[in-house]
Amino acid sequence: MSDTLDALERRLRLLEDREAIGDLIARYGPLADRGEAAALARLWTADGIYEVVGFARAEGQAAIAALIDGAHHRALMADGCAHLLGPVAVTLDGDEATAVCHSVVFRSVSGHFVAERVSANRWRLVRTGAGWRVQHRANALLDGEEAARAILSI
Amino acid sequence: MSDTLDALERRLRLLEDREAIGDLIARYGPLADRGEAAALARLWTADGIYEVVGFARAEGQAAIAALIDGAHHRALMADGCAHLLGPVAVTLDGDEATAVCHSVVFRSVSGHFVAERVSANRWRLVRTGAGWRVQHRANALLDGEEAARAILSI
Amino acid sequence: MSDTLDALERRLRLLEDREAIGDLIARYGPLADRGEAAALARLWTADGIYEVVGFARAEGQAAIAALIDGAHHRALMADGCAHLLGPVAVTLDGDEATAVCHSVVFRSVSGHFVAERVSANRWRLVRTGAGWRVQHRANALLDGEEAARAILSI
Repeated sequence: MSDTLDALERRLRLLEDREAIGDLIARYGPLADRGEAAALARLWTADGIYEVVGFARAEGQAAIAALIDGAHHRALMADGCAHLLGPVAVTLDGDEATAVCHSVVFRSVSGHFVAERVSANRWRLVRTGAGWRVQHRANALLDGEEAARAILSI
Repeated sequence: MSDTLDALERRLRLLEDREAIGDLIARYGPLADRGEAAALARLWTADGIYEVVGFARAEGQAAIAALIDGAHHRALMADGCAHLLGPVAVTLDGDEATAVCHSVVFRSVSGHFVAERVSANRWRLVRTGAGWRVQHRANALLDGEEAARAILSI
Repeated sequence: MSDTLDALERRLRLLEDREAIGDLIARYGPLADRGEAAALARLWTADGIYEVVGFARAEGQAAIAALIDGAHHRALMADGCAHLLGPVAVTLDGDEATAVCHSVVFRSVSGHFVAERVSANRWRLVRTGAGWRVQHRANALLDGEEAARAILSI
C-alpha cells in the first residue's frame, strides 16, 4: 500500500472508531429499556465497571447484568421508561477512548412522563478483538454536586 | 481501481451510509416542529408508512403529510413543541437498514415544558436513487406496554 | 495522487467535516454544565456571536464567556443542570456549514428535574486554521412563537 493510501486508511480508521464508539453507546438505552441484561452487560469488557455514584458499583458483566435484572430496574420497566442519551463528545487515544454525554431516565408515572434522573456520564472505552467495549462508565446525578461536573471534564 | 482502493471505498461507503441515515432521521424533528408537511413526508419513500401505535397509521407521503397538517399537530405547534430524538443505533444490511432510537415530544404548557410523549422508534430504511429514505417508522409510547419494548429490539 | 484517490479523499473529508462539527457541538453541553467559560467561548470564532432570542446577545469570546460566568448561569449550576442537545442536521458548503438541533436545559429543583428551556438552535460554522468553529449560534424557546420555528429551517 502506498504512503498516500496508508494516510487515507488511517484517517478512515479514526472515523470508523468514532462511529463504532457512538453506535456502541447508542445501544445502551434500547437494551436497558428492554431489560436485556446479558446483551447490555456485553457492551462492557469482561471486567468492566458500571459506577452509579451514590447508588451502585457493578464490577464485571455478571454484576452489571444483575443491576438490569434487579428489582429497582424491573419496577422502572413495569412503569415504562426511556434511557435517553445526548450526543457524545469522544476523545480517541489509539486503542483507548473517552466519551462524555448526558443521560435522562424518563419514567411513566400515572399517565405522565417525569425526568427521574438527569445525569453526567463518562465512558472509558478500549479496543478489543471484538471491537470497542466499555471499560468503565461513571454516572452521577446533575443535582448541583461537584461529582457530576467532574465527570463531564473533556 | 486496485483491490486495496476498492476495500477502502467499501469501508468509506459504510460510513457514508450510516452518516446519511443519521442525518435523514435528524431532519425529522425540525421539519415536524415547523409543520413542513410535504418536506417531512419526503423523508419517507412514496409508499412509506408512519405508524404511531394506538394513534395513527399513515400510508404513503400524502397520508404522512396529512398527519402534520392535521388539527392535533397544529395545536401542538401553536402551543410550542420540540420533537427531540436520541442517538440512533443503526444496523446496515446492504441497501436496507434499521435504526432504533427514542423520541420525546416536549410541549409548552402555561409557561412550562412537559414531556408529552416519550416513545420508542424503529425505522426501516431503504437506499433509493435519491439516497436513503424511510420505508416504515413505528413509534410507541414507553408507558410500560410490551409494544414499545418490542420496537427497541436491536 | 491519482484521480480516484483524490475522489476518495474528497468523500473522506466530507465525513471528517461532519464528524468534527458534530463533535464540536457535542462539547457545548459538558462545558456549560461545568461552567468552563473560557473553553466554551473558544468553540466560537474570536468574533463569534451567541444570540439567545429575548434574553441575551453576546458578541466575541469575552462576552460569551461572561454569560457562563454570569449570575444567571452560576445559579443554574448551583442547583444542578444539564444542557442536553439533540442530533444535529448538518448542511455543508465548503468552508461553511449550518447545523440545526434542539436543546433542553434541565434544572434540578427540590429533588426533581424540570425542563426549564426547550429551544431551537441554529449554528453557523466556519472552517478555521484550528478546525471548525461557531460563527453564530441562535437559540430561541419553542414556546409557540415564530422566532424558534424560523431557526429550525433546514
